Amino acid sequence: MTQRAQTILAGDIRTASRLMRDLDDRMPGAIDDLKALYPHTGKGYIIGITGNPGAGKSTLVDALISAYRGQGLRVGVVAVDPTSPFSGGAILGDRIRMQRHALDEGVFVRSLATRGHLGGLSRSTFDVVCVLDAMGYDRILIETVGVGQDEIEVMRTAHTSVVVTVPGLGDDIQALKAGLLEIADVLVVNKSDREGADRAVRDLMHMLELRHHGGGVASHTVEIVKTVASLALREGSGVPELVTAIDRHRAESWEGEAGRERMRARAAAHLADLVKGLLSDRVEAAMAARGGLGEIAAQVADRREDPYSAAESIAASI
Amino acid sequence: MTQRAQTILAGDIRTASRLMRDLDDRMPGAIDDLKALYPHTGKGYIIGITGNPGAGKSTLVDALISAYRGQGLRVGVVAVDPTSPFSGGAILGDRIRMQRHALDEGVFVRSLATRGHLGGLSRSTFDVVCVLDAMGYDRILIETVGVGQDEIEVMRTAHTSVVVTVPGLGDDIQALKAGLLEIADVLVVNKSDREGADRAVRDLMHMLELRHHGGGVASHTVEIVKTVASLALREGSGVPELVTAIDRHRAESWEGEAGRERMRARAAAHLADLVKGLLSDRVEAAMAARGGLGEIAAQVADRREDPYSAAESIAASI
Repeated sequence: MTQRAQTILAGDIRTASRLMRDLDDRMPGAIDDLKALYPHTGKGYIIGITGNPGAGKSTLVDALISAYRGQGLRVGVVAVDPTSPFSGGAILGDRIRMQRHALDEGVFVRSLATRGHLGGLSRSTFDVVCVLDAMGYDRILIETVGVGQDEIEVMRTAHTSVVVTVPGLGDDIQALKAGLLEIADVLVVNKSDREGADRAVRDLMHMLELRHHGGGVASHTVEIVKTVASLALREGSGVPELVTAIDRHRAESWEGEAGRERMRARAAAHLADLVKGLLSDRVEAAMAARGGLGEIAAQVADRREDPYSAAESIAASI
Repeated sequence: MTQRAQTILAGDIRTASRLMRDLDDRMPGAIDDLKALYPHTGKGYIIGITGNPGAGKSTLVDALISAYRGQGLRVGVVAVDPTSPFSGGAILGDRIRMQRHALDEGVFVRSLATRGHLGGLSRSTFDVVCVLDAMGYDRILIETVGVGQDEIEVMRTAHTSVVVTVPGLGDDIQALKAGLLEIADVLVVNKSDREGADRAVRDLMHMLELRHHGGGVASHTVEIVKTVASLALREGSGVPELVTAIDRHRAESWEGEAGRERMRARAAAHLADLVKGLLSDRVEAAMAARGGLGEIAAQVADRREDPYSAAESIAASI
């Protein structure tokens, strides 16, 4: 047990924030604290929230925080924005929930951006979630700003992925098909007081059916929940139903022997990512010793060396 | 120079076929033949043909073969079908071009399927293309059966990627957006004697504009060619225009200093893939020594070990 890990386990928010920053900066030593925290993880339930920009994800997250706080649960939030060059919470400071929950010690919000390093966002997200989990946050919400490939990757960290859309997106509902629908455990039609909400629900049901028939492995039923998350409505209509749908998915997917099996598969994927990250660093060093990838590639492109021998020599020297 | 490489360079088709099969089976020794062939590559021009099922890709490939044969060029074809469990040419034996070009020594057709090994289809495709290139085939056509992620990956092997669609696909034109449009160097509206051909062209132009404005790096103009490739029409209408569009893309993208730069970037990507493949094998062995990924993951999932230490120990032991 490291000193810093102990302080964090005792509930010191500022120390936790500093560790998260150090982890993001890949500071030596930070990983030792994370290793020490890991045995204390596994109790937090991780919920990912993603979906089209403008779908009202932030307001929905805000409503979920209120709902969970109402149940007496502590809530951690990781807001992921790969387009922002800043990490650390400042960029989302203007968000309503920051003001609303700022004085609530049961809520911890952390922003994450890509800092350009390899392995990137998913790794950083997992690290932050790990710290929050060890600190005893009962629900950990991961919110993404957009729906890029990086952000879909990030959703793999979640136990339940909630995909949010709104009525009247037209073509963009089609865009949901590519990638987003595949990862959805619960679908939300937010702003469902708008015209076209029922049609959006029907479209989504149709797509789910297609997915089902297309041989997609539907390990569970995907529920579709209509919500109107707005600050005026306080908790928002449909939010209790969303909470219930998430609980139902949890019970269906993460409990019993099948749940344990899934936990192991998840750990395996995470482990493989970590190994890949460690090896990437070593491959880069091995290539640098030979003048860098660009130089080796030039030799291959000019037929001065064959790519198979070059790859073998790089792999042999790491 | 290996004996087998020498025989292949002398034009022995049966030996080449055997090498391709051995490469696909990852037979020891086969890679040495490939290394020996590599310095003889770099003259063949590689054209990928992909697009919606039912778009008439095979007939179009057939027409392209005829067009290139008419120019006195030798043509190699790699038909990629990741859904088939069989490799080796048999599965596509019923295709028209096999009958039509079967006795033409200037045409070599090879089928490829995933055999389930890591690195998969792209690697196997590159290997086969390499052999065909060394043998002096002037044009090497890579045809994919579907438009899955694997097949889009395979297109990275090509110098020019031709994406084929047909009028009246409706929603499926939308599906083109996801992935396929990004890789298109030339777009073909095949069966353009059908109703809706002009509309399909307009839709594609619109999407290209969106892509352009969306910050997509358009290093060159994407031409849209209307074709009617049918066996009755022999070479098919629009096929000479397609050949010209491919030549134009070649001149624009692969000649001069920018072209050399692109060759190097391509070699770098290929090299990185090869290194990754070699390391995957070693990682798997390192994990097997610890009881396999499943066993390690179970320990991590049960919090008996933290994933960071586990990953470090695996990475350290490869």
